[in-house]
Amino acid sequence: MKISLAQIEIIAGQPKVNAKKMLEIVRQSRLEAVDLLLFPEMSIPGYLLGDTWEQTAFLRDCEYWGQKLVEASENICLLFGNVAIDWRKKNDDGRVRKYNALFAAQNGRLLSDGSFPYPFRIKTLQPNYREFDDDRHFFSLRKLAEEMSLKVNDLLQPVSLCINGKCFKLGCLLCEDGWSDDYGIKPIPTLHKNGPVDLFVNLSCSPFTLGKNNKRHRVFSRMAREIGVPLIYVNNVGIQNNGKTIYTFDGCSTAYGPGGETLLHCRPFEEQLCHTMLSELTQISPALPVTVPNDNGIDSIYSCLRFGIERFLRQTGLSKIVVGVSGGIDSAVAAAMYSHIIGPQNVLLINMPSRFNSQTTINLAQKLASNLGCRYLEIPIHESIELTVRQMEAASLPLSSFMKENVQARDRSSRILAAAAASIGGAFTCNANKSELTIGYCTLYGDESGFLAALADLWKHQVYALGHHLNQHVFTAEVIPAENFTLIPSAELSADQDVDAGKGDPLIYPYHDYLFRAFVERWQRATPEDLLGWYIEGSVEKNLGCEPDLIGEIFSTPADFIEDLEHWWKLYTGMAVAKRIQAPPVLAVSRRAFGFDHREAQNPAYFTHSYLNMKEKLLNP
Amino acid sequence: MKISLAQIEIIAGQPKVNAKKMLEIVRQSRLEAVDLLLFPEMSIPGYLLGDTWEQTAFLRDCEYWGQKLVEASENICLLFGNVAIDWRKKNDDGRVRKYNALFAAQNGRLLSDGSFPYPFRIKTLQPNYREFDDDRHFFSLRKLAEEMSLKVNDLLQPVSLCINGKCFKLGCLLCEDGWSDDYGIKPIPTLHKNGPVDLFVNLSCSPFTLGKNNKRHRVFSRMAREIGVPLIYVNNVGIQNNGKTIYTFDGCSTAYGPGGETLLHCRPFEEQLCHTMLSELTQISPALPVTVPNDNGIDSIYSCLRFGIERFLRQTGLSKIVVGVSGGIDSAVAAAMYSHIIGPQNVLLINMPSRFNSQTTINLAQKLASNLGCRYLEIPIHESIELTVRQMEAASLPLSSFMKENVQARDRSSRILAAAAASIGGAFTCNANKSELTIGYCTLYGDESGFLAALADLWKHQVYALGHHLNQHVFTAEVIPAENFTLIPSAELSADQDVDAGKGDPLIYPYHDYLFRAFVERWQRATPEDLLGWYIEGSVEKNLGCEPDLIGEIFSTPADFIEDLEHWWKLYTGMAVAKRIQAPPVLAVSRRAFGFDHREAQNPAYFTHSYLNMKEKLLNP
Repeated sequence: MKISLAQIEIIAGQPKVNAKKMLEIVRQSRLEAVDLLLFPEMSIPGYLLGDTWEQTAFLRDCEYWGQKLVEASENICLLFGNVAIDWRKKNDDGRVRKYNALFAAQNGRLLSDGSFPYPFRIKTLQPNYREFDDDRHFFSLRKLAEEMSLKVNDLLQPVSLCINGKCFKLGCLLCEDGWSDDYGIKPIPTLHKNGPVDLFVNLSCSPFTLGKNNKRHRVFSRMAREIGVPLIYVNNVGIQNNGKTIYTFDGCSTAYGPGGETLLHCRPFEEQLCHTMLSELTQISPALPVTVPNDNGIDSIYSCLRFGIERFLRQTGLSKIVVGVSGGIDSAVAAAMYSHIIGPQNVLLINMPSRFNSQTTINLAQKLASNLGCRYLEIPIHESIELTVRQMEAASLPLSSFMKENVQARDRSSRILAAAAASIGGAFTCNANKSELTIGYCTLYGDESGFLAALADLWKHQVYALGHHLNQHVFTAEVIPAENFTLIPSAELSADQDVDAGKGDPLIYPYHDYLFRAFVERWQRATPEDLLGWYIEGSVEKNLGCEPDLIGEIFSTPADFIEDLEHWWKLYTGMAVAKRIQAPPVLAVSRRAFGFDHREAQNPAYFTHSYLNMKEKLLNP
Repeated sequence: MKISLAQIEIIAGQPKVNAKKMLEIVRQSRLEAVDLLLFPEMSIPGYLLGDTWEQTAFLRDCEYWGQKLVEASENICLLFGNVAIDWRKKNDDGRVRKYNALFAAQNGRLLSDGSFPYPFRIKTLQPNYREFDDDRHFFSLRKLAEEMSLKVNDLLQPVSLCINGKCFKLGCLLCEDGWSDDYGIKPIPTLHKNGPVDLFVNLSCSPFTLGKNNKRHRVFSRMAREIGVPLIYVNNVGIQNNGKTIYTFDGCSTAYGPGGETLLHCRPFEEQLCHTMLSELTQISPALPVTVPNDNGIDSIYSCLRFGIERFLRQTGLSKIVVGVSGGIDSAVAAAMYSHIIGPQNVLLINMPSRFNSQTTINLAQKLASNLGCRYLEIPIHESIELTVRQMEAASLPLSSFMKENVQARDRSSRILAAAAASIGGAFTCNANKSELTIGYCTLYGDESGFLAALADLWKHQVYALGHHLNQHVFTAEVIPAENFTLIPSAELSADQDVDAGKGDPLIYPYHDYLFRAFVERWQRATPEDLLGWYIEGSVEKNLGCEPDLIGEIFSTPADFIEDLEHWWKLYTGMAVAKRIQAPPVLAVSRRAFGFDHREAQNPAYFTHSYLNMKEKLLNP
């Protein structure tokens, strides 16, 4: 039995485009004598569509194209993901009943053996965490079991399938069904118990997350080994978004043998049709396992960003980009990435000095542009700043030094970059990093603006690492000047931020990067109460994963530690939220990017009863 | 038995503040011999908190304050909503188990009669539509039943309660449990069957939505009448938000008699303690029912906006506001609202003419300011626009007329209004309406910026209606000049938008307002396929609810209708999405505000197979 894993690129919200591509693959696969052709989850509609699921016409269209796939299954067996609609029933929201479903078709018909109430299978475990909203749109197998007064486990029946006269039992899973560790329902062993199952297939639409494939290989290998049945994971490539957050899909479709070995692995971020034979997967001592790439390093971050930026530009029809280059590391990395992706001839770099910008950073920006071969402009902003200050003063609206900092930032982005981008028929980038975004160390309509915040899921130390990676492995030349890696990070918006005098940002990145990461990314989110507890027991560095002995070096007293902690906590949960509401979309890399994976309300900062008690005891022992 | 409905204002994310208020009410109520004191759903933590539910320290704090409430229940019975945590179990996301729970306490202890596995009750029906994400955070009774291999209906047991030697069975509901029409589970009849129940209480945290109370009275009255048991609904007041969308909570707590009569009704948008006696509720022929206000009119919209703006200003600590006044209706209504709410002395109105602004609108802006008594400034922008154009041209970056329109819009907001707001220590408003926001007829970092888009859930015709309401019923004077209601709406950004020549926006509001409403607000979202179907059968006006015969007047051929339809659909699902991602938070009024209640992805526009077929037949018959 020849099996093909169709790791295709899916365009979210374009059933016709996806279905036509799938139909062509079906045609080709039949010529190549493929017996079983596997497409990813939701391969016809795409998955992250916001509330497009509420459009009846869209649902009918998905059904229409799904039917075309079924009709095309002469002499081949297809498995594909699509939305399934039961027009006679309702979802809990009163809209029509929708399932995140797996369709198995052969010889123009859906495979149906009476073991299940529908001629398709339904996702059992629906994720409602991170960026996922499955229960918002789809009726899970768990709810169907409740409705039918049955046990979920009784509905978890394998699909019977006969190919060339031999019959198999297929254990059909959709994405989360394979990640059952935290659920009371365990689809894989249950399907096997109700089988036994000859082969598990997991159709997925699973976004890239730094380190997730490493975990998947552990979890899925263990599952295959424990059950002793091979498991095939088919994932799509492409980008999909939920408005505020853009996700890349890396594919990395994999076949696991019954001993848990990785027998087949498709390339990351590429469309690929991978073939295997059931006999190769089922033999107990198979050929050598293939090695799978580690996906936890800076090279994975680079691959994700390169792919994500390229696809987002393509999808939005942008081919010309403006990057405001300050001479600092963030904009240098952004300029290098875009220049690498769309070519230096399509990237315009603009340096916009005010009277606070040093010749040091202006020279660095110029050097960067010359290294990359991009067009470079210097458009000063002091004349405009002076005009604004003059107009405000004439209206008795005086501006403080801090206010003038924001005036500069807004002038650069909203006045210069936006106009320049329009002029070349393109867009301008937001170069903010995750450390800045966490505490709102950026100006709304200023540096916190642009069509995409491609680096905004990277902590400052990751931006540096990406810069090194670009020089060493992508350009194999020092395109980002060496001085950028040693220069003090500074906004250069006032005399207090003079880089030549070693003055810069108020952030101590070796500590704050890790503090903010604990606020944002830990599965059990850290709060001041946790931090103060760790401080008292001397375990802050260990818990945050930063360099040892850092706390003692930075803070001479508990009061200093507390003042710093409260300052950033208030910003993170306060003004920074207001800013993030209006921030550009973020390209996701980490296990928690800002936006749809970090839902937040604009509420006053809060300190718990326990925190205030600990603080009181510590300050007034 | 004396019952008190504590319609309190809840501050989201502030357990200490809420609990202290509740403790004070408990103390007072005991003095007033209240037997049963009812607080709203999630009265300790608040409800719309984003992912704050993932902070363990916050959960412990909610538990701590909940325990304080329990301890305070000597000689009184309290019901309140809070998060309940089972620290030994997990949610489906692997985090600790959380329930949206109802606590009943008396004499320092939680009421528990062994009929339920916990000493509190759990929400059965969890909404996952509109702005609600209950399954993301809370484990429902339905999942608990599945876990325990029980039927949900067997877990729906009333709470036994004895007061002054008399024992009752209380049917405890949390919000959505009372809205079971679309669910297979029906908590009210089930609880009664497992009782019988003497009194139903529904603790809610239910946001204002235009017309929702009218529907609630119908649904809840019918329920009470069908079961023949009184039902008390307790809702909070205040504002809560999910970042992009701000919701007001109107209270309007109500007691329904066993015949379905409305026997008690608390005031909208006010804290209130309402008292009743169980005997008054249970008698079959009670006193005259109270009348409840209709909440579907412009006065309700006004009340919601006034309350929401006032509370949002209070919560964000803002007391000074800048409104850019163009001389058009939107900014006039915004100026009048803010002036009414925080006083004209705290509102600065700025008109920012370019060479395209007519003396007509400048005069109107001036007149408005003088009518309201606000400080008024005219800060022209042509000097800055000329500077920008000059700088761009010097850099060989020419700007077209359309680009210059956006340059003007950004100059006004990001340069002038932002600086002026900073100078007075306040914020500036976004005056965009829902018609503009739907199709992105506004400029990012320009008129689509500001701290709050208070009018962005109103269609253009509702903005006019609100303007009339302000003049007639709030100010009882023509503060918004009469000409504003007849002047053609125009952005005045080019010579093509000359109001004096009767030129203005490309929107035909009497049609497009209703077309866009069908795209956005219909429970079954309308799409071009629906519209074209209606066009062919001549029922567009009927389906949209706009004036009859409009389509024939506006479009002379099917091709015209189609061109217009596709133009706006592409914008609504395309560029306008990109703009909304960075738009200010919207104050919700309707059944579907932009933001968290209208989840959307930045994807290419799509036209279904059926639509394209219909179009083809229509254009080439």
